Amino acid sequence: MKSPEKITKQSENFSKWYTDVVRVADLADYGPVKGTMIIKPYGYAIWERIQSIFDARIKAKGISNAYFPMFIPESLLHKEKEHVEGFSPELAVVTHAGGEKLTENVVVRPTSETIMYDAFSKWISSYRDLPYHVNQWCNVVRWEKKTKPFIRTTEFLWQEGHSVLATEKETDELALDRLEEYRSFFEETLCIPMYVGKKSEKEKFAGALYSTSCEALLKDGKALQSATSHNLGQNFSKSFDIQFENEKGKREFAWQSSWGMSTRTIGGIILTHGDDKGLILPPDVAPVQLVIIPIYKDEKEKKELADYIDGIKKKTKDLRVRIDDREQYSPGWKYNEWEVKGVPLRIEVGPKEAKEKKITVVSRLDGKKDSVSLSEFNPDKELDKFKKTLLETAKKFVTENTYEVTSYDDLKGVIEVKKGFALAPWCEDGKCEQKVKDETTATTRVIPFEQKNIKGQKCIVCGKEAKVWVYFAKAY
Amino acid sequence: MKSPEKITKQSENFSKWYTDVVRVADLADYGPVKGTMIIKPYGYAIWERIQSIFDARIKAKGISNAYFPMFIPESLLHKEKEHVEGFSPELAVVTHAGGEKLTENVVVRPTSETIMYDAFSKWISSYRDLPYHVNQWCNVVRWEKKTKPFIRTTEFLWQEGHSVLATEKETDELALDRLEEYRSFFEETLCIPMYVGKKSEKEKFAGALYSTSCEALLKDGKALQSATSHNLGQNFSKSFDIQFENEKGKREFAWQSSWGMSTRTIGGIILTHGDDKGLILPPDVAPVQLVIIPIYKDEKEKKELADYIDGIKKKTKDLRVRIDDREQYSPGWKYNEWEVKGVPLRIEVGPKEAKEKKITVVSRLDGKKDSVSLSEFNPDKELDKFKKTLLETAKKFVTENTYEVTSYDDLKGVIEVKKGFALAPWCEDGKCEQKVKDETTATTRVIPFEQKNIKGQKCIVCGKEAKVWVYFAKAY
Repeated sequence: MKSPEKITKQSENFSKWYTDVVRVADLADYGPVKGTMIIKPYGYAIWERIQSIFDARIKAKGISNAYFPMFIPESLLHKEKEHVEGFSPELAVVTHAGGEKLTENVVVRPTSETIMYDAFSKWISSYRDLPYHVNQWCNVVRWEKKTKPFIRTTEFLWQEGHSVLATEKETDELALDRLEEYRSFFEETLCIPMYVGKKSEKEKFAGALYSTSCEALLKDGKALQSATSHNLGQNFSKSFDIQFENEKGKREFAWQSSWGMSTRTIGGIILTHGDDKGLILPPDVAPVQLVIIPIYKDEKEKKELADYIDGIKKKTKDLRVRIDDREQYSPGWKYNEWEVKGVPLRIEVGPKEAKEKKITVVSRLDGKKDSVSLSEFNPDKELDKFKKTLLETAKKFVTENTYEVTSYDDLKGVIEVKKGFALAPWCEDGKCEQKVKDETTATTRVIPFEQKNIKGQKCIVCGKEAKVWVYFAKAY
Repeated sequence: MKSPEKITKQSENFSKWYTDVVRVADLADYGPVKGTMIIKPYGYAIWERIQSIFDARIKAKGISNAYFPMFIPESLLHKEKEHVEGFSPELAVVTHAGGEKLTENVVVRPTSETIMYDAFSKWISSYRDLPYHVNQWCNVVRWEKKTKPFIRTTEFLWQEGHSVLATEKETDELALDRLEEYRSFFEETLCIPMYVGKKSEKEKFAGALYSTSCEALLKDGKALQSATSHNLGQNFSKSFDIQFENEKGKREFAWQSSWGMSTRTIGGIILTHGDDKGLILPPDVAPVQLVIIPIYKDEKEKKELADYIDGIKKKTKDLRVRIDDREQYSPGWKYNEWEVKGVPLRIEVGPKEAKEKKITVVSRLDGKKDSVSLSEFNPDKELDKFKKTLLETAKKFVTENTYEVTSYDDLKGVIEVKKGFALAPWCEDGKCEQKVKDETTATTRVIPFEQKNIKGQKCIVCGKEAKVWVYFAKAY
């Protein structure tokens, strides 16, 4: 019997802990091209759950999916100036195909604004066509220098939603509505609390009027930009000539929004909930919600247990359940494996339990063994409790690691010593933001929508009058 | 009101009819890069249904999904000689990325054997790891000279399943089992009958020991290779060093199989079921199974109808139903639109029907108007009947357009005049196959598993002793 692989402790080496969890929980492996990742079945099953739940939310808004080609002619990408400047350094370029040099190079989509909006310009002509929404689940490529499984890979999977609207006001509302959709999904489904707000000019999406973002505070105090929703203004509609005839018969440029979330989310789950034993999965996306481990000495006991386990199966039929009856591993080995894999609940059952009509229930959260009678066991309630505790624990951590600061020294203390988010008054000048970045590597994460009174506050960098409270943090 | 777009008649210009249907039914549009396709929401919704139904079949076999990178280093692709020779002419090559020339070019996957099997060689070490199966839904690229929406596009979507097994026998069985899975899916879900059998040496997958295929006979008499299942033998395991220790502790090369189906399937649906009015969709994959069209003169009648339509909605709540109450279009316009879009059932309902508690039901198959009482209307039964008729009609067409021939002249007559499949005796010599291709453009499609007695038959090309009956046809 091979012994279970060890996972580095978080306190020893957090970064090594992360890659250990990814490997030992069998979530992903490295691809042969630098920065690429193979999402293994257990990791992909989590993505499938995320997709299915979030896709239902998108469809509930009446939005359909479509699929646009991944190849974008270079000339199309160049139509929006800021956009191409932002993405150029990260592009993968196809120069040869079908055995010939192409007359025009094509890039692999880093995002699909340009190819979609070229099509929208042909499809949209009247106010009757608006609002127009479409979403796609696909792969995108951004050639990154520094990569980390799930968090930042050259190819990743995501959904990108795109909306075309008639007015600025509708677009503001839509961008916020989508952000709230992400925030509530992260909180309700993944038990990850988020800071939401507007990105600074420097940190906004290339080509957007402004960007909004959900930012998670991870266990190492770093931020993870987890989903974004942009008001693109009329920047793209003017570059791509998306015009519509309004009700008065006058032609106007449309307003646009795009909004996305990616496989990075799986990294967010690991880095929010994981502990020294490995992964802890939110029940709604756990490929296995409950594992049953039969404990027996011999074939006779095994047989006696079978019927009782059938009863447990019936009782838990609405859950994703695995019965781990592999002969070659000991119960202890199995406990360890399913703990690494983050399965929320474990049931241990032996001949004694069967006789007494009891089960031993172990939560991945505290590892405590509870002996309960099978008839009283309510799996849905247990999972609800699990979710609630998971979210509360995460919220507590976020609160405890967010600091309000009003001096540059205190900011540095938060970023470099305490490790966490610093909410600080800022004048909104890019130079001050850049100074913090240069000196601490921390960046502005979001200007929260809910602003405390800023009156009288001074920018922690330049000391001039502050305009907003903003979160600073190191980010992945 | 814009008038509905006209669709060319099948008898006038079949190829134009096809592209008209794709455009007017709003299934797809052309992408900016030659040979690429935008799958629009209505077309993509069909693909989502295909995915969801077939994915459930895959999962029912205990097989999980995963995701492998789309970028394959050229050196990996070159490991299996026949494979790279087969795919080289169709590759898209990334030579630059991240602003630099790559030290090794990467290709966009035309299929994933090489990148997957490189990983399998690390993951598989013992007989205990076998059989190993994995499936992925993804995009692939084959740079084609001649393209046609859905049927042949440079980028397409598909599922590719990959299996690693210990023995030749298991691999033979698995390849057949997967083919039968496809055949039954096509027949039961899409109402498309298939010829199944083995591909000739010339037509097999590059790198396979042998290939099997499902071939549809389309309305223009052409064949569509609709899904394939390959026994790859030990060709790849030897190139990629996939070895396992057997129960006796001896190392052996594994056996492998791959099996796939793509968005081409949507082309198969159009070309099997479509008619001069447009698309006809099999109910299981129809984004809208039933459209309700209220007919009224004024606001008062409209209001009176609302309650009655609520009753119809309740009665059809398990179906995918659309109520088309758009004000700007006439009922006739709507009938036309939903006919083009292939919606199986239409309900027309006006004040008279509401008063009499009746509905007018129109099947897309024959367009006949049936007045039935709402209480007697059984939507599930109607859709079942629809499916049955759709399949029977398709089967009849296939039977009527398949000819047994025993002379080269008769073969030519079938291919060039009658247009259809010719089942002919063949010596299995590649030269005879090539002669038919050169002279008629027809190719061997499959050597059917169910063989009639071949004894005494002569090859229709060379006159030598025939070894098998094989289907010849022009193919997409």
